[in-house]
Order: sequence, then structure tokens, then C-alpha cells
Amino acid sequence: METKTGTIAVLGGTGALGSGIAYRLARAGHRVIVGSRDAARAAEAAEAFNARVGRQACEGALNRDAAAGADLVILAVPYATHDALVEEIAGVVGGKIVVDTTVPLVPPKVSVTHVLETGSAAARAQKALGDGAKVVSALQNVAADKLASDEPVECDILVTSDDAEARSVVAGLIGQMGLRAIEAGPLANSIVAEALTSVLIGLNRRLKVPGAGIRITGIPG
Amino acid sequence: METKTGTIAVLGGTGALGSGIAYRLARAGHRVIVGSRDAARAAEAAEAFNARVGRQACEGALNRDAAAGADLVILAVPYATHDALVEEIAGVVGGKIVVDTTVPLVPPKVSVTHVLETGSAAARAQKALGDGAKVVSALQNVAADKLASDEPVECDILVTSDDAEARSVVAGLIGQMGLRAIEAGPLANSIVAEALTSVLIGLNRRLKVPGAGIRITGIPG
Repeated sequence: METKTGTIAVLGGTGALGSGIAYRLARAGHRVIVGSRDAARAAEAAEAFNARVGRQACEGALNRDAAAGADLVILAVPYATHDALVEEIAGVVGGKIVVDTTVPLVPPKVSVTHVLETGSAAARAQKALGDGAKVVSALQNVAADKLASDEPVECDILVTSDDAEARSVVAGLIGQMGLRAIEAGPLANSIVAEALTSVLIGLNRRLKVPGAGIRITGIPG
Repeated sequence: METKTGTIAVLGGTGALGSGIAYRLARAGHRVIVGSRDAARAAEAAEAFNARVGRQACEGALNRDAAAGADLVILAVPYATHDALVEEIAGVVGGKIVVDTTVPLVPPKVSVTHVLETGSAAARAQKALGDGAKVVSALQNVAADKLASDEPVECDILVTSDDAEARSVVAGLIGQMGLRAIEAGPLANSIVAEALTSVLIGLNRRLKVPGAGIRITGIPG
């Protein structure tokens, strides 16, 4: 499928969230480069996705090579490695949309928001990458295992960016993944989705449910 | 009705949000003191609520007198007057539950979150009031006019506090108001509800809807 998003790299694409993203994008017809710190694991994951979707949609690569070879880059790595990865790819994402899914969780109290201390991860990525990259924040609130499944996911995706066109492109991609995207304003508003993740984790634990999510009510669609 | 919440003061109880809160609490059987900066307006609002619920549930008072005379105090004033009101009541809310509904909106860009710059309003209230007061954050996301109506409200209420018992008491009150309360952890998590309000305001404007809200999905009830 030809889209204006072109080839999509999912960095951390062998991880819990990243693998669900890569699979659903491949299922939607996109060409996906699965990025990892381990090229062999990346290739292995890519083959598994190809087997699942029944075509050669994915290939594996080291994270930086994946970012360099793609038109649109998605970051799906743990918070602990987020800043280092942003620095690693800074030279190869100029002019590209960079989707940041990272939540600034600070173990062990991951059910308590830490945004005030650390600032929004997405805003930090935008600052580190400079104006050349179009950072879009999304996909913080969806349960990874639900995303990795073929089931409908009962969770809206808040999408924020200072670049309205990039935000719209990413909202479209998320729709193709079978999720409802909600365009939620500038990147400053990324703290809503980032902080909300801690609340959802707390609910999962306290109520013993696998994946609390959110829906926006009172809007069309 | 006798409850362990006793008499409830709603400061800013003549305003858009406060009047909906005061009315729904009166409707649920509580004794309510409607607080305002203007005693005559407070008395007038109280009479209107009494007429609506068909009993003498409410009386009016100046904000500080209302707080002094109540067992549980709800703050429902605009952000611009929040800090001054907290200071005004500091001497009379020791040992009481103080429910803070305030959102740190910074006009004119009220659809952009400002929590990072200002800190959470509820956490600031807790700090200003000291450990003697039990601050609970709630009711930021509900549309005021829906609350003032008798219709069911399609919006969950995130309730946060560092005092688990106070949080549970307030969650119970919110249930009596006909809303679903979600206990969402410590007061630090208040930034989720506070920041989310800007996103909902942005959606109301962009999509031309009267009151976008949220639901938590994937949990019982």
C-alpha cells in the first residue's frame, strides 16, 4: 500500500508495546522496519510478523538504521532508554514525523505520575531533536497485549503535536491500526496521556483487570 | 440524611460548577452551605436550590463562614481566585476533608495544559493548608451545565488524595450525586484530571460539542 507515511520504523519493535504497533501497521498494509538494539532479535520479530500477516511486510534492523531507512519513526522503548535513543537517532530523523509513545514511569511507584519532576517525555524528545523533526505523542494508554491481539481495543488514543499536519497523519495511522484517535492539541498536552498511564496502571493493580483504558465521551464517532 | 460527611460547604457555590455540585448534594439529601464572596447572592442561590429540591437543604454564607460551619468543604472557584481562597480558609479547615475541583487554566489558551508551569492546583492547596486538612481532588472533568441538570452525566470522576479514607468518602459523595467515581491514587495524580480538562475544552471547541468527558474502560461497574 502506498501512503504518504511511506516506510515506518518501530524502534523497540520487539518489545511489548512495539510489537503490537509493528504487527498492526503491517496488518494494515504498511512496510515496517522493526528496530531493536539486537539485529538478530529484530529480524526474528520481523519474520514472525510476516508469517502472521502472510506477506513480506517487515524487516529487522538496528534502531538507528531503522530510523535512517524509514520515512516515519515510532519510538516504543522503556523510559529508562528513551533519552539515549532520542540522542542516537537525532542525526537521521530531520524532516520526519517521530511518534513518541513513551511514558515517564519511575519504578517502583509506577502508579504515581512523575511528569511534574521530569517534564513530558514527548516534549523532551522534541527539544532534543530540534524543530526539524515533527514529534507526535500517542499510544501511551493502550494495553500492549490488547494491541498485540486481533481483538477490538476499547481505548481511545490521544494524539498531540505542535505540527497539525503530522498530528493528522498519525491519527490516520492509528485509525488504520483499528483504534480511535483523538486529536488532543499541542505537544504540551502530551502530559495528559503520559500521566494517565500511571492512573490506569494503578487501576489494573487495584481492580485486578488486564488493561483499563479510556474513552472520550460526548463527541461524534 | 445523617452521613459521616455532615454539613457540606460548597465555596463558589453560586458559580457554574459550584451550583451543580450544591444542587446535586442537596438532591441527595445532604445539608449544604452555599458559599460566595457575596452573602446575598449565596442566600439567593440557596433558596433556589431549596425550591428545586422541595426542602430546606441549603443556606447561604460568605465563603469563610461556610467553610468554618461545615464538616466537609468543596472548593469550586475559578483558578484566578483559588490560591487566595485557600489562604482565606486555612484557619478553619483543620481536620476536615477539602475537595478541590480547581483546574489551573491560563487564559487565553485554556485548551493547552499549564500544569507543568504551575504545579497541580490540588497539591498546592494541600501544601498551603498543611497536613491537618485532607485535600481530595475531584470533579475537574465534568461539564458544569450537565451537572446542574437532572440528566445522567456521561463522565467518570477521577478522585485522588493522599488520604485513602478521605478519598473513599468523597468517592461515595460523588456516587450520591449520580456520577461514577474512580479512585485514581495519590494527590500527585490530580494532574491527570486537571490537565485533561484542557484537552476536553479543546475538543468542545473544535468539534462544537457542549461537554466532552471521559470514561474509564476495562474495569468492573
